[in-house]
Amino acid sequence: DEPVVNTECRLTEFVGTTTLGDTIGLVIANVDPALHEAMGIDKKYRSIGIMGARTGAGPHIMAADEAVKATNTEVISIELPRDTKGGAGHGSLILFGAEDVSDAKRAVEVALNAVNEKFGDVYANDAGHIELQYTARASYACNKAFNAPLGKSFGLIVGAPAAIGVVIADTALKAANVEVLAYSSPSNGTSLSNESILAICGDSGAVRQAVLTAKEVGVKLLETMGGSAPSVTTPYI
Amino acid sequence: DEPVVNTECRLTEFVGTTTLGDTIGLVIANVDPALHEAMGIDKKYRSIGIMGARTGAGPHIMAADEAVKATNTEVISIELPRDTKGGAGHGSLILFGAEDVSDAKRAVEVALNAVNEKFGDVYANDAGHIELQYTARASYACNKAFNAPLGKSFGLIVGAPAAIGVVIADTALKAANVEVLAYSSPSNGTSLSNESILAICGDSGAVRQAVLTAKEVGVKLLETMGGSAPSVTTPYI
Amino acid sequence: DEPVVNTECRLTEFVGTTTLGDTIGLVIANVDPALHEAMGIDKKYRSIGIMGARTGAGPHIMAADEAVKATNTEVISIELPRDTKGGAGHGSLILFGAEDVSDAKRAVEVALNAVNEKFGDVYANDAGHIELQYTARASYACNKAFNAPLGKSFGLIVGAPAAIGVVIADTALKAANVEVLAYSSPSNGTSLSNESILAICGDSGAVRQAVLTAKEVGVKLLETMGGSAPSVTTPYI
Repeated sequence: DEPVVNTECRLTEFVGTTTLGDTIGLVIANVDPALHEAMGIDKKYRSIGIMGARTGAGPHIMAADEAVKATNTEVISIELPRDTKGGAGHGSLILFGAEDVSDAKRAVEVALNAVNEKFGDVYANDAGHIELQYTARASYACNKAFNAPLGKSFGLIVGAPAAIGVVIADTALKAANVEVLAYSSPSNGTSLSNESILAICGDSGAVRQAVLTAKEVGVKLLETMGGSAPSVTTPYI
Repeated sequence: DEPVVNTECRLTEFVGTTTLGDTIGLVIANVDPALHEAMGIDKKYRSIGIMGARTGAGPHIMAADEAVKATNTEVISIELPRDTKGGAGHGSLILFGAEDVSDAKRAVEVALNAVNEKFGDVYANDAGHIELQYTARASYACNKAFNAPLGKSFGLIVGAPAAIGVVIADTALKAANVEVLAYSSPSNGTSLSNESILAICGDSGAVRQAVLTAKEVGVKLLETMGGSAPSVTTPYI
Repeated sequence: DEPVVNTECRLTEFVGTTTLGDTIGLVIANVDPALHEAMGIDKKYRSIGIMGARTGAGPHIMAADEAVKATNTEVISIELPRDTKGGAGHGSLILFGAEDVSDAKRAVEVALNAVNEKFGDVYANDAGHIELQYTARASYACNKAFNAPLGKSFGLIVGAPAAIGVVIADTALKAANVEVLAYSSPSNGTSLSNESILAICGDSGAVRQAVLTAKEVGVKLLETMGGSAPSVTTPYI
């Protein structure tokens, strides 16, 4: 089914929602000074764009990466709640900063529109999920979340339960000559989620190859646990 | 439906339960010395009252606040597990200390009886929840949990997913002249829950106004995501 | 119903799965050097065995304890994600290290086969769970996870929601002369799970007595909340 996108709410703060991951996009034109200070936001950002989700963090970070590439905004913060309506992974709260409200709003719109694509290489069943992400040119969201070098190719390999993530991290690194940016596990670098996460960079062909080889092994293991694990939307890598 | 309250268990430690949030109230007349030490409880509290829940933290803290006002007990600790049976928020574990078991038991009884009311301004649907709390006179539970000044008016504004919480925190602060006590988000001040939480104090009329304005915006946004979001019980603010 | 055990996947990394807790067992014969370093594993372990689960930590740690007793392996790490498909407790990720892949694989096989038994004293209903574990002779997994003295009798008393865990920790300590190894609660020593956990050691008769007395009280309280709370498999203590 197509995710239901709702843009009918008339509040000025509302940008849009999608049922995919229970994602909502919002904007505040002039953040109240007391909140601005409590949130610790740089004074130059009068306006903030907000994208949050119950389910999904990788897809939303990659979508935010597209948004900062396309707009005059910066990524203020990326927070990963331990909430996926009972699933094994994260939810997300991503803030964009802008001097002008139209820029903040545009960033949220671009990000919301990109979420659908970035769920394309999330493969899920009742036992867990495998998530792959890939970009030929990382921008500020990937940099903030995973320390990805700007403008270089970047890839993400996620397995849940975490046991599968360990194996496909190994698979990815054996498949191509790429560099490890970060390896995260339930107690180290995740918000206690049941995932192992490998972030890699390098030559774009090698990164893509590593990600796709990990996918094949990961989906096979996940399907052994819980049966068919189709793409949540449509594969993009 | 009325929540089912069960008080039929004959164990001396049992005080009562309510299906609302899977809440249970218990008491230990003489805490075992080895446990007393392992828990790090002040020696003067021979007896402890215990209230715990799978779903709900704000309502339970506010209910505990009523209990310490009404009894000769103190709040020993408030812990917020990341458990709401798959929801976006917290569960809770609240301990009351007393020199006498009858005081500890009374505190738990008062708190259990207040939970129903304090769920009144929790509005929920499948996409998340909005929670508002308000008191004209904060006591020791609000003080312990949110640093609320004793005897002053206190309010709580919670939105889940956290993106909505950011917007209604802003709404609340613009609606009335109140003071920010704390702003929490998934990575800062929550137990990794998918909530943004604003705690405020000030003149009681202003606090109430801020809370009610935030409610209106929050429920509207939540209903845009997930349809009708009624009160869990009956609004009290 | 019997849990479904699947050993039909042909990937060399695959050892087996069980639907009990969504548990999977895997092995890597030669961990990729870059992953080896990113994971911070001792260089002497060329091979690792991996057991991970969505639901269950105590049963898996006890099962891993049997595995290290029976094989030439060591427990590298035990991580407890906050994931039980929406439940109150932990999932798990346990790594075994070995110089030889056949040892790593054997450890995972032994552990997977022991999981069924170790779920025997987990009693669950919709309101929460009570978990008891007992061994006459603790080994390296209990030592790593709970600081249990090697070769001594060890017991574990878990209650969820955490309120019940507090009471049955007290019950256990009053029932027999045992020593407290650790007391954990949502904010201290758990991964923010809604559990109170007491780890004890001492004379084996006393440990067993403490555990069984706690079980009786715990199951009674849990059943008061949520109705019948049967063993997940078959009691073993």
